[in-house]
Amino acid sequence: MMSNKRLQQVFKKLVENHIDYLLITDAHSIDYLLGIMIHPGERFLGLLLSANQSSTLVLNRLFRLNREIDIDQIWYFDTEDSMQLVSSLIKQSNVVIGVDKVLPARFLLPLMQYLPNAKFVNGSMIVDKIRMVKDETEIEKMKQASTINDLAIDEVIHLIKEGCSEQDIAEQLASIYRKYGSEGVSFEPIIAFGANAADGHHSVDNTVIKSGDSIVIDMGCIYQGYCSDMTRTVFYQEVSNKARVVYELVKKANQAAIAMIKPGVLLSDIDKCARDIISEAGYGENFNHRLGHFIGREVHEYGDVSSQFNIAVEEGMIFSIEPGIYIQGEFGVRIEDLVIVTKNGSKSLNTYPKDIIVIK
Amino acid sequence: MMSNKRLQQVFKKLVENHIDYLLITDAHSIDYLLGIMIHPGERFLGLLLSANQSSTLVLNRLFRLNREIDIDQIWYFDTEDSMQLVSSLIKQSNVVIGVDKVLPARFLLPLMQYLPNAKFVNGSMIVDKIRMVKDETEIEKMKQASTINDLAIDEVIHLIKEGCSEQDIAEQLASIYRKYGSEGVSFEPIIAFGANAADGHHSVDNTVIKSGDSIVIDMGCIYQGYCSDMTRTVFYQEVSNKARVVYELVKKANQAAIAMIKPGVLLSDIDKCARDIISEAGYGENFNHRLGHFIGREVHEYGDVSSQFNIAVEEGMIFSIEPGIYIQGEFGVRIEDLVIVTKNGSKSLNTYPKDIIVIK
Repeated sequence: MMSNKRLQQVFKKLVENHIDYLLITDAHSIDYLLGIMIHPGERFLGLLLSANQSSTLVLNRLFRLNREIDIDQIWYFDTEDSMQLVSSLIKQSNVVIGVDKVLPARFLLPLMQYLPNAKFVNGSMIVDKIRMVKDETEIEKMKQASTINDLAIDEVIHLIKEGCSEQDIAEQLASIYRKYGSEGVSFEPIIAFGANAADGHHSVDNTVIKSGDSIVIDMGCIYQGYCSDMTRTVFYQEVSNKARVVYELVKKANQAAIAMIKPGVLLSDIDKCARDIISEAGYGENFNHRLGHFIGREVHEYGDVSSQFNIAVEEGMIFSIEPGIYIQGEFGVRIEDLVIVTKNGSKSLNTYPKDIIVIK
Repeated sequence: MMSNKRLQQVFKKLVENHIDYLLITDAHSIDYLLGIMIHPGERFLGLLLSANQSSTLVLNRLFRLNREIDIDQIWYFDTEDSMQLVSSLIKQSNVVIGVDKVLPARFLLPLMQYLPNAKFVNGSMIVDKIRMVKDETEIEKMKQASTINDLAIDEVIHLIKEGCSEQDIAEQLASIYRKYGSEGVSFEPIIAFGANAADGHHSVDNTVIKSGDSIVIDMGCIYQGYCSDMTRTVFYQEVSNKARVVYELVKKANQAAIAMIKPGVLLSDIDKCARDIISEAGYGENFNHRLGHFIGREVHEYGDVSSQFNIAVEEGMIFSIEPGIYIQGEFGVRIEDLVIVTKNGSKSLNTYPKDIIVIK
């Protein structure tokens, strides 16, 4: 276990951040560090790490390990108090304990009671920041997930025909992904016709396609545990001049943002680049979300491409670039690619064309 | 708002439990109390109630209300500190604040820092216990969700034929449910063939049906926001004597447990009834989970039919009765119904037959 490079990075960060113990409960982070995926449901699953490099995995006896792992394990019964058990592993008082940002109150409150002299802090960033930079194995899986997405979106676009509804299209996605070797969707796809495309949170419904509709297709799959995520906007039969202008503007913002990505550039500056292009054309208020998000094992991971995130990008980071313009009641356009930061620049993981498509 | 019966029940319970403020963050509980469903994602959504009957909803400006509500609202921007905002609504120090069991550490820890003299407790049970007992509107929706499930499982069973895989069946479920007016599945269905049926957490895969397989089908849908959940076990072409004996035993446990349900009976005694039947036949260790769970807006809600839950059932409660016997490497059998407690007994929401079915 001590040869585990990812764990070693965490131990190093614990010392740097003056955290004595880190209680990791995010199942994806535990899988990232140990290579075992457990879905704990309502039950407690935790990896307790200490700054002096001890590590203990606490598991419910109903869980199963998909492989043997070389790490201390404590298995508890449903009738046992898992938080008393975790607290008993912490020998000193007056320690600083980092807990996961997702640790629910039903665990955190009793743990605090058992350890009244400990100082609890949000320690998620320790692992989250390491997960922002992907290693070679992860990059290969992310590339494959996006390659499948390129193939799948082409099929989806060809499914759109007279009389079809959003649901008709969405329902076929799982089997399309499966055909290409994916485990399934990485999130509920957005297939939004016409004015629905102007609603960033539109749920697929039984709206039927009609001439002139903008069609926002935001979809992604999972391949060997890693996610893809891409958006394309196409038009049905015809496209208004206004929609065409908006489309070209969004495409320009997408391409300009991607073109400026290289190690050292601030995430907030990438957001600003795309946002300025859209704002200068008078559509600033119609672009009401961040430019992008980090992605990996989860479709949304720690890290935003937004004005709030003024950190510099590093080689191996993967995030989305997805400017959008939404005209309420009329139409919407979003163009999203996943981008990996390379040594001297960046590379898009999606290669599906961005030239305007009008389905005839 | 003050005429809201559910909110009044909560206010009453706050006083009884000596809780000064209750911060409800579970989106389903907020919908239950206010009739508005918001999916907050990573952002904060909270309903703050006080024992002196004030109520304030705290929302991010990106959220949208699907209808107008008569309650104080505070809308915050992404750039604001939502926990500082919540803390500013609590005027006194030394108060007892109940928080939701699901409130994540990323909100709870800063809130505690802003309110260093408050005592924080898990206050979920206040609302959870009220949600255990369904009112007439809820019961109607639950019945309809289970009626759809009865129709859908019949179609699913008729889909099983030579050469088909678990995935082939599972993929058709969404459109079957939709045809009957459901919004979709209430959980990822379990369709488990042969030895897969012995794994309580089996994920649908590409296993192909073969003669003699037990087939566990555990499925449910959502109708107007309420969930159904039912399991049937059928056999393909033939059934071994051992599997037949196990099937009849599980059916007997299911029926005996349901027969004893009436107001006043303890949930733990219902569990014991089914467990004793299975244990006395020598299969006690092969029934490795609780007998049932509560259900409503969520497929698993607060409340178990288990040895840990020695509370008396009340008219209007709805929960599952799902005994199972799992023979590792061979087969599994589970039979699950949703049951509503009536004035003098109980009624099953599912009516799909429980006599053994062998698909020829």
